[in-house]
Amino acid sequence: MSRPVRLAIQGATGRMGQALLALLRNDERFELVAALTAPDAAQLGTPIYVGEDSGLRFSHAWPASGELDVVIDFSGPSGLADALAYCQAQGVALVTGTTGLDKALQDKLAAASATIPLLRSANFSLGVAVLKRLLREAAAALPDWDLDIVEAHHSRKEDAPSGTALALGEAAASARGTTLGESAVYAREGRTGPRQAGTIGFAVIRGGDIVGEHESLLMGQGERIELNHRATDRSIFARGAIEAAHWLAGHEPGAYDLDAMLNERTAR
Amino acid sequence: MSRPVRLAIQGATGRMGQALLALLRNDERFELVAALTAPDAAQLGTPIYVGEDSGLRFSHAWPASGELDVVIDFSGPSGLADALAYCQAQGVALVTGTTGLDKALQDKLAAASATIPLLRSANFSLGVAVLKRLLREAAAALPDWDLDIVEAHHSRKEDAPSGTALALGEAAASARGTTLGESAVYAREGRTGPRQAGTIGFAVIRGGDIVGEHESLLMGQGERIELNHRATDRSIFARGAIEAAHWLAGHEPGAYDLDAMLNERTAR
Amino acid sequence: MSRPVRLAIQGATGRMGQALLALLRNDERFELVAALTAPDAAQLGTPIYVGEDSGLRFSHAWPASGELDVVIDFSGPSGLADALAYCQAQGVALVTGTTGLDKALQDKLAAASATIPLLRSANFSLGVAVLKRLLREAAAALPDWDLDIVEAHHSRKEDAPSGTALALGEAAASARGTTLGESAVYAREGRTGPRQAGTIGFAVIRGGDIVGEHESLLMGQGERIELNHRATDRSIFARGAIEAAHWLAGHEPGAYDLDAMLNERTAR
Amino acid sequence: MSRPVRLAIQGATGRMGQALLALLRNDERFELVAALTAPDAAQLGTPIYVGEDSGLRFSHAWPASGELDVVIDFSGPSGLADALAYCQAQGVALVTGTTGLDKALQDKLAAASATIPLLRSANFSLGVAVLKRLLREAAAALPDWDLDIVEAHHSRKEDAPSGTALALGEAAASARGTTLGESAVYAREGRTGPRQAGTIGFAVIRGGDIVGEHESLLMGQGERIELNHRATDRSIFARGAIEAAHWLAGHEPGAYDLDAMLNERTAR
Repeated sequence: MSRPVRLAIQGATGRMGQALLALLRNDERFELVAALTAPDAAQLGTPIYVGEDSGLRFSHAWPASGELDVVIDFSGPSGLADALAYCQAQGVALVTGTTGLDKALQDKLAAASATIPLLRSANFSLGVAVLKRLLREAAAALPDWDLDIVEAHHSRKEDAPSGTALALGEAAASARGTTLGESAVYAREGRTGPRQAGTIGFAVIRGGDIVGEHESLLMGQGERIELNHRATDRSIFARGAIEAAHWLAGHEPGAYDLDAMLNERTAR
Repeated sequence: MSRPVRLAIQGATGRMGQALLALLRNDERFELVAALTAPDAAQLGTPIYVGEDSGLRFSHAWPASGELDVVIDFSGPSGLADALAYCQAQGVALVTGTTGLDKALQDKLAAASATIPLLRSANFSLGVAVLKRLLREAAAALPDWDLDIVEAHHSRKEDAPSGTALALGEAAASARGTTLGESAVYAREGRTGPRQAGTIGFAVIRGGDIVGEHESLLMGQGERIELNHRATDRSIFARGAIEAAHWLAGHEPGAYDLDAMLNERTAR
Repeated sequence: MSRPVRLAIQGATGRMGQALLALLRNDERFELVAALTAPDAAQLGTPIYVGEDSGLRFSHAWPASGELDVVIDFSGPSGLADALAYCQAQGVALVTGTTGLDKALQDKLAAASATIPLLRSANFSLGVAVLKRLLREAAAALPDWDLDIVEAHHSRKEDAPSGTALALGEAAASARGTTLGESAVYAREGRTGPRQAGTIGFAVIRGGDIVGEHESLLMGQGERIELNHRATDRSIFARGAIEAAHWLAGHEPGAYDLDAMLNERTAR
Repeated sequence: MSRPVRLAIQGATGRMGQALLALLRNDERFELVAALTAPDAAQLGTPIYVGEDSGLRFSHAWPASGELDVVIDFSGPSGLADALAYCQAQGVALVTGTTGLDKALQDKLAAASATIPLLRSANFSLGVAVLKRLLREAAAALPDWDLDIVEAHHSRKEDAPSGTALALGEAAASARGTTLGESAVYAREGRTGPRQAGTIGFAVIRGGDIVGEHESLLMGQGERIELNHRATDRSIFARGAIEAAHWLAGHEPGAYDLDAMLNERTAR
């Protein structure tokens, strides 16, 4: 793309918004046009980078027509609804990671994808998105190999297995024509008996400040494959959203996800 | 398949032939029709399983017409030439792992694939074949991530990196539009300077009796993916050849490799 | 030692006995004097190596006085009782891996260690013995780091966690002044809440034909240590018993275990 | 210790000083008495925590007599010389990570350890210190097992292997009665021939933003041990220095290092 992609961030004062701003500071592929926040945000009107005036301040006013190529939204359902209305009216692409949407808002998003490019994801880690693809393929290519998923997270995490481990398991189960409901084994303790063919096992590690690691083991006779993802920094979600925004700008209207982007990259 | 696949092994007294015989003993998907060997082999005429007469003895006579579905060949160039002549004449599928072919024999194989199904591979490990596919996809999906390949083998191995590591590297390089000749870094020692973008690095471990392990690391900012294959038993090559034979029997004439089989398995 | 250690195997036709015989065939540190078995064993009187007469046959007669330095026993309680009587009478060292001993036999072993060198172990893997030592030390050196143990075994294994995982956990717990009874968490599923300080967690992988792998993770803030053992071949138990026999021959009378041997090796 | 340890930081405005301040903010085991810096430092006289006045400001005046238990120094040779003079005069313990000392300063430190407790280290990661101990022990306990060390660092690192990998290798070599000069193999490429017994191999991975990972493999027949350290955050060095300061305060005069602290922790 010959000129920078013109970008606004909706939810710019949130944790993800801050991470996006930090990364965009040195990313010449983009021109940051607006950092939007709720009308009652404490930071409204202050410079977006503490101790430095880049000219841009937190605002709740959307840019004028023709000033934007894409919006990244990590705000919340009402912030997303605002962003969606603007993007539809202006023909601007929209990337959103907001979750917890009600049926009405989901329907609006579905409808909007007829007129603007719209990319949604619950997890913007590119590594996890790629791992899910690879696991689907391996599970289908080696249908008889035993499959277990191990995940490790910090000691404060309160549930198990992680949502990502479950998503990986669902992807693998689906590639084998089954579901986690039918095939998952969530714990092994005591007299378990031999492993049942076709099951997908989970194992959970907790400790320290581990950001998030996922290991998929496909175990055959005399050989095995391990497909691992290790995250060491929570900035990966912001990085993935920025990659997605750069990719989405200029695409045809439609409903996209990270897989669509990866499909395009890996098409030969 | 409602009835067992009727199979002959060419090169049945060799190391791979013996491994195939051992595995076929308990594989009800197959009927072993002949165990062929060179006319001057010491074992000619002896039972194929030591201390037990299954009715089958090592032989150098090919079965009569209509008795076979597929031949697995791990003999050598002249044994392969014999097997090829038989398979072509009888319309029987052929799986071969024989290497070191001259141009004339390669041309004959190419020609034969017009009339019979013919599958060749230099490495029949299904795990390695799958890993290569996954690595190609990951290298293309994450073009900016740094890529290194680590391999470990037993202390007696005399060269480095392993052929499999190089094959994985070539697959990844090709997926990124380059070659190992252009991008490989085979050793890092002393004042290396920073890593050059786009290079593919290799690292080598030697020790003990490790059968063969390969790890591909794709390293991004804040996250990474590891794609590993671990072999613990050399029987995996015989297992892969048997899977290939079972798959090939009944296919249309053509030139196939393990990737073709995996393509069919993973097609949705 | 200037001359080979003179050795007898009690339980020579069993699985471990066979593995010992296979390894001793090429071990010049030893002279194999007798391969003992039960009086009703089918192999009694046959050569110890199939298809080859090394001069040695399976027997149930103990060697004459002064012909042995050490006995390795993997027979069973009654075979061990015989070996013990012989070793005590002759002043010969005894290595035994027989388990399931009753109180009376345990008392006899304890008494015998006053007059002969006697080494017992439930697991003769040197790697596991070393790992246990390292884990004890790490658990004590980093008392605040979270500790989890992951183990992987083949799909036919019917219980979890493995005995070795539990032994590792006990060793670590003891180094921290606690027990598994007080600190173990055997499964994590659903709403687990945050990790409790001081607990030792277990995670279990099952699949393929994995011989046995154990990973101990000590997880701190910003760093972690992983102490892993991977077995790829069941011969490791026979190897360890042979190392132990070689070490034990010539030692003072006493009750020894693998740790005693490792203590001597690591003393500076 | 019933009351908090009274602590001063020398070199408080440097990278390590800042990391120490950040960690001490929430560490109730300590009372931070002074944050010392060079007399010409720009931050002199400003609050030590930006945007908040804890009452403490960067200063170059040492506390009055009797106000301190321990000083942590990460300043530089001249800053260390000042800290040393103060600690000796006042009988205060000193922890220092300053490197690049000339002979005169080294001699002064050696002399000072007769009158004050003094702990020096070139690497304050507790995990690395523990791993080095474990590797020494394993290398001695398994003298015949092949040993390789693999290290991974970010793509900007300009030399190989890492200093930590070399330090681990030296520790292992020393435990086996040799040196890296005699036993190291830094790269394997092409026709290497079989592995020479007794060598210590190195393998190097570079990519992404990996903070630092070290893996030691001890490879036997049928089994292996892996001793790994993974750092995900550079704060580990500040954490280790704080642990060391807490431990050192109240000890007898003497020259200490992290190993001395670990010895005390692991003594049974």
